Amino acid sequence: MANPSPVKFDDPAAFPRGFRCTSTNCGLKPDAKDLALFVSEKDCAAAAVFTRNQFPGAPITLGRETIKNGTLRAIVANSKCSNVATGAKGLDNARRMAAAAAKEIGSTADRVLVSSTGVIGVQLPIEKIEKGIVGLAAQLQSDPMVGAEGIMTTDTFPKALSARLGDATITWVAKGSGMIEPNMATMLAYIFTDAELDAATLSKMLRAAVHVSFNMLSVDTDTSTSDTCAIMANGLAGRVDEKLFLETLTAGCIRMTETLARDGEGAKHLLRTTVRGAATDAEARTVAKSLVNSPLIKTMVHGADPNVGRLLMAVGKAFDVKIKPASTDAWINGYAVVKGGERLDFDEATVRAALKNEVVDLEVTLGDGNASATAYGCDLTHGYIDENAAYYSS
Amino acid sequence: MANPSPVKFDDPAAFPRGFRCTSTNCGLKPDAKDLALFVSEKDCAAAAVFTRNQFPGAPITLGRETIKNGTLRAIVANSKCSNVATGAKGLDNARRMAAAAAKEIGSTADRVLVSSTGVIGVQLPIEKIEKGIVGLAAQLQSDPMVGAEGIMTTDTFPKALSARLGDATITWVAKGSGMIEPNMATMLAYIFTDAELDAATLSKMLRAAVHVSFNMLSVDTDTSTSDTCAIMANGLAGRVDEKLFLETLTAGCIRMTETLARDGEGAKHLLRTTVRGAATDAEARTVAKSLVNSPLIKTMVHGADPNVGRLLMAVGKAFDVKIKPASTDAWINGYAVVKGGERLDFDEATVRAALKNEVVDLEVTLGDGNASATAYGCDLTHGYIDENAAYYSS
Repeated sequence: MANPSPVKFDDPAAFPRGFRCTSTNCGLKPDAKDLALFVSEKDCAAAAVFTRNQFPGAPITLGRETIKNGTLRAIVANSKCSNVATGAKGLDNARRMAAAAAKEIGSTADRVLVSSTGVIGVQLPIEKIEKGIVGLAAQLQSDPMVGAEGIMTTDTFPKALSARLGDATITWVAKGSGMIEPNMATMLAYIFTDAELDAATLSKMLRAAVHVSFNMLSVDTDTSTSDTCAIMANGLAGRVDEKLFLETLTAGCIRMTETLARDGEGAKHLLRTTVRGAATDAEARTVAKSLVNSPLIKTMVHGADPNVGRLLMAVGKAFDVKIKPASTDAWINGYAVVKGGERLDFDEATVRAALKNEVVDLEVTLGDGNASATAYGCDLTHGYIDENAAYYSS
Repeated sequence: MANPSPVKFDDPAAFPRGFRCTSTNCGLKPDAKDLALFVSEKDCAAAAVFTRNQFPGAPITLGRETIKNGTLRAIVANSKCSNVATGAKGLDNARRMAAAAAKEIGSTADRVLVSSTGVIGVQLPIEKIEKGIVGLAAQLQSDPMVGAEGIMTTDTFPKALSARLGDATITWVAKGSGMIEPNMATMLAYIFTDAELDAATLSKMLRAAVHVSFNMLSVDTDTSTSDTCAIMANGLAGRVDEKLFLETLTAGCIRMTETLARDGEGAKHLLRTTVRGAATDAEARTVAKSLVNSPLIKTMVHGADPNVGRLLMAVGKAFDVKIKPASTDAWINGYAVVKGGERLDFDEATVRAALKNEVVDLEVTLGDGNASATAYGCDLTHGYIDENAAYYSS
């Protein structure tokens, strides 16, 4: 099983001091919220990671420029339209969106991170967004779920978490839930803290936390052109223990990763695949992802069928990793099903029943070293197909 | 579009001289045929390629040994049970199966290639198979479809093709249709010819043909542990023009690849993704496969939605290939939809109608060189999930 985290999360999620947010409908969607604003009362040290997709959206191009300063005051994000494949006009629109938010909160555009999520290849209705931003400063409130609502696309629920460490708080706000696979951050995820940390430290910690969480998430192997994960630290709670901060940050990123996987398009199960005994971290990650991404594993989890052959198949197709069948063992939700590369004579009814759990843990040991990794995903159901065969581009 | 082949195929498919086959039910399945035998009246020069999966079935281990001699007289194959993850006993059973077929046809076990396809992790019911083989020699007949029927698993129809070149004939017999993605041969495919060619030449030609056909097929990215593609040449038609033979062999392998894609689990569309203007063959293949494997592309084809963003996303997530958005153009069934990395203002109703064709061709030019590649796949539908969530391991 994935290691249980000792970190306790607040219920409901709350913001660190100095952060507030709001969201509204500015007319991109018929009724639902489509515009969100997250603001700190003072400038924050900040860091971000972005999609590796080679058709990045205009907000990604702008965001890479903005984050170089290591300072953010606010994040403005819209859903419904992603501002991707929109050329020079798209970039200009992203700049206008930053400028509008900066004007509204009394800051400058270079301190506002912009995100857009939704359909690709359509110009941003920038006038609607500019008009929608006017007046948002007066509506800022303390519930992070309100901001989370404004960035939902096919998500079925808004997503926010928070945890405390000493006097400081960390809050995560994110959205999923299709076109999700790592190589960077997999979605929009914003992290807010009142801990005092400089931008370089935040950047290092963010990369470490994302490496084992969002970058190990895959709903469908498809990497979005808009993925962004940003962290803002306003320092209002003063210094914190850096080791404890990284632990808490990582635990929250993993928890949010599981939340996103659970809400993967059409998902009925959270699927965790853990590989141990690999020669290197990279090999452990490769095999864990081969398992979590296999359509035959995903449909097996959906059907609650202990089809051990698919497990071996998915390990064996990781061609870049030298697999030794004779030292390969596997478990399904704690039940041993493979020993030395051969199927064990396990009780099928018991394992079938265990596979009906909402959380399905597949574990594999390779007997080749000490590295391990866990990947996060979900089952593949009719819901995924219904969502994506019907999600019209216009 | 993929290049139309000038090769004409026979209808119905017929065997080259000297080849016959049969199939029967030996009790592995309740009623359907589950055992097939293909025999040449004299020894053949032969070559084969096998799965790269690192949990190969016992027949693969044995087949690699058998094919070293470059000589085959027969192929014996069963469906329902794949004899994978079955250890030393599994290998012994594969040897017994070869020996039984050799005895039946009056040859030796080292000239019989064995294939097994079906569920993984279950020991082969070898007694049933041995009993089933007895008497098959008397039932050999000239219709390759009869052999094709014996190796079906979730295939919805048996698959055989044949084409003539001069006095010689080539016949392809194959089965699909899930757990299919390249890195070798993707399924069971047997090729029979009466042309006279030595084993080394056959091996070279088989590898070249498979490279652009079966190895560019992907139904679900999952690579079987049993994939085998073998060719047998009994020489009864004498020498042939080698260039023409390779062209015909390749055309038939591509045609069979398209047939397998069309019969992919749950498939309603044949999806062909062609990449041109790549710097290298490897890069063209990588991008073509990124397109053909993307669940969001596959569901878009299923839904007949010209969602251009998904096309760009799938090109851009080929991280190992340097993509230049400004020189990237794309077409859907011949209609230009992307120019210089930006979505064109095309007529959506027209492209939507074109996407309803049974064959969907997605073409991308990268503007980076002269290499090209085509990958073959299918749409993702409820049928795939129904098939695989219900395909019990026991």
